[in-house]
Amino acid sequence: MSLRIAVIVGSLRKGAFSRAIALALKELAPPQLELNIIETGDLPLYNPDLDEATPLAPWQRFREEVAQMDAVLFVTPEYNRSVPASLKNALDVGSRPYGHSVWSKKPCAIVSVSPGGMGGFGANHHLRQSLVFLDMPVMQQPEAYIGHVNDALDAEGKVKQDNMRSFLKTIIDSFADWTERTRPQ
Amino acid sequence: MSLRIAVIVGSLRKGAFSRAIALALKELAPPQLELNIIETGDLPLYNPDLDEATPLAPWQRFREEVAQMDAVLFVTPEYNRSVPASLKNALDVGSRPYGHSVWSKKPCAIVSVSPGGMGGFGANHHLRQSLVFLDMPVMQQPEAYIGHVNDALDAEGKVKQDNMRSFLKTIIDSFADWTERTRPQ
Amino acid sequence: MSLRIAVIVGSLRKGAFSRAIALALKELAPPQLELNIIETGDLPLYNPDLDEATPLAPWQRFREEVAQMDAVLFVTPEYNRSVPASLKNALDVGSRPYGHSVWSKKPCAIVSVSPGGMGGFGANHHLRQSLVFLDMPVMQQPEAYIGHVNDALDAEGKVKQDNMRSFLKTIIDSFADWTERTRPQ
Amino acid sequence: MSLRIAVIVGSLRKGAFSRAIALALKELAPPQLELNIIETGDLPLYNPDLDEATPLAPWQRFREEVAQMDAVLFVTPEYNRSVPASLKNALDVGSRPYGHSVWSKKPCAIVSVSPGGMGGFGANHHLRQSLVFLDMPVMQQPEAYIGHVNDALDAEGKVKQDNMRSFLKTIIDSFADWTERTRPQ
Repeated sequence: MSLRIAVIVGSLRKGAFSRAIALALKELAPPQLELNIIETGDLPLYNPDLDEATPLAPWQRFREEVAQMDAVLFVTPEYNRSVPASLKNALDVGSRPYGHSVWSKKPCAIVSVSPGGMGGFGANHHLRQSLVFLDMPVMQQPEAYIGHVNDALDAEGKVKQDNMRSFLKTIIDSFADWTERTRPQ
Repeated sequence: MSLRIAVIVGSLRKGAFSRAIALALKELAPPQLELNIIETGDLPLYNPDLDEATPLAPWQRFREEVAQMDAVLFVTPEYNRSVPASLKNALDVGSRPYGHSVWSKKPCAIVSVSPGGMGGFGANHHLRQSLVFLDMPVMQQPEAYIGHVNDALDAEGKVKQDNMRSFLKTIIDSFADWTERTRPQ
Repeated sequence: MSLRIAVIVGSLRKGAFSRAIALALKELAPPQLELNIIETGDLPLYNPDLDEATPLAPWQRFREEVAQMDAVLFVTPEYNRSVPASLKNALDVGSRPYGHSVWSKKPCAIVSVSPGGMGGFGANHHLRQSLVFLDMPVMQQPEAYIGHVNDALDAEGKVKQDNMRSFLKTIIDSFADWTERTRPQ
Repeated sequence: MSLRIAVIVGSLRKGAFSRAIALALKELAPPQLELNIIETGDLPLYNPDLDEATPLAPWQRFREEVAQMDAVLFVTPEYNRSVPASLKNALDVGSRPYGHSVWSKKPCAIVSVSPGGMGGFGANHHLRQSLVFLDMPVMQQPEAYIGHVNDALDAEGKVKQDNMRSFLKTIIDSFADWTERTRPQ
């Protein structure tokens, strides 16, 4: 049984560490998980006035892509001790219009990253607060706060440390279990 | 001595309750405060790749407008138990490039609003976490969680209750004191 | 199949609203749930120095009682925008010694209460942050922020409003489902 | 002009890293600051039923000691991603009875510590949420998240690294400035 996973990357930078970690997780995923990065950089800032009769095309595209997935994996840096605006915007866009959230009941997990030592703790837990309202069962353990993420990656963005690869493998395997246990039947 | 206040409104809706409350605060402000709403709806999602030699024009415009102000007043609803994406984007845009944040050391206060009873508590405190990193002295009391905000406003968005007007007056007067005490000399 | 639920009440007051709501939830619980209030008022403040060869008797008692349960229901007021100290102490005591947490993998839910309108939002979400570390799958929806809790109860602490009773019934039924789906097999 | 600082240490362990860091800050403090550790380990868990005609003697002692101080410095580890129960209990005890909080308007700062890399970020920001309600102006920068705290201390609990000593000096000097600017006149 295949599970389709929406991967939401928190940074819009082409060479983002969070994107590199997302790609590493995709490679390490067990065969029953299919990871798909859903792009968020083209989504206009959410404004309810523009979401009436005909929603904006990029919002519509994003909602349709997420709606087809079974679960969601967030991989994100921290901006100003919280989630990057582009990630919050993706949450807001996907949650509307009222009663038609594409997030509802999808299991999820969070991997936060930072160049410093704190591993994006602030972003990680701010995101968790939104996930309560969005009704997404969230994996609790293993927590994934990846500090010094730049040291973990080589010039091409590949994971160069075995212990990091092994940690990421544990994360993605645990997420496969969590998704199987908590997705709607 | 006049103090120039940047007002950042969290919702992009034309008829937003948060904008109506911001305008009410502007009317009630003591003479030494000059409140200026700084618009955020045209700011592209922050992406460091686009912020190198020549920053995008709307980012530049926003940074210049905030830079001229003495203090900042945030008036915001809660989206998905956190700040709206457009408000977080304004924070992210204003905080960069590294070492050139326009927020640094500006005193600030937060007014959060909601149609329900909880008054945007989640947005209010998520915003506070970012303000620590941004080095903005934040007014602690009176806290301003305005629940049932729609009941406080008439069809033209004017405050219709005397006790609400009086509460807003207390907020803006306290913020004037806070700004005078904590802005850089 | 019977599920044993540890109920942790956040306030130590005899006439606490949170205790009254906990008792109401016990009455409304579906037959397969057995709710047991586990007392926390006699637990000394957690101090690792006193938790070596022979743990203090009240800590031992508390740990044994929680260990026998299948899931945990927290019912709590907010003190100073966070969880009451007695609730945090119960978490800390139950989480130690390292590797012997009694909380691990037990499904849980939170009901927060307040006399004001905000329903203990701050306590509710601070508790959620601890539950991540404690590896407790937490029910996301329905969220339970019970504002104006005193209006919901009569002089004997019984729920007097039908819509409140019906809301509490939804909470406890949803928690039964959540526990069945996410407890260890 | 001398400023008296209440130092609240988050851990009750005799050999606590947070206590060692508090003592280091005391040594490094500029002459106008007098740091006094106020003990919290003997405070019974806060219970409003016991705080009526005659408050418990340890509560009374604690309240009187804090009341005499000009400002407050919190030095704390993180327990279960939040503040230790003993620290939250000190906050709760000092905040009551209603209208007689000993914390009100006292400037404060937070230093959080951890043996791991994250420096007690979760405890640090949970504490900040309480400080809003308690009306304590809180120093925003420099933030102090001290990770790998055990590596910074020698066997007698003295700071062994010059860069750590210099960081702590910056913290305590900044706190002296913050206290002078924001304490009630």
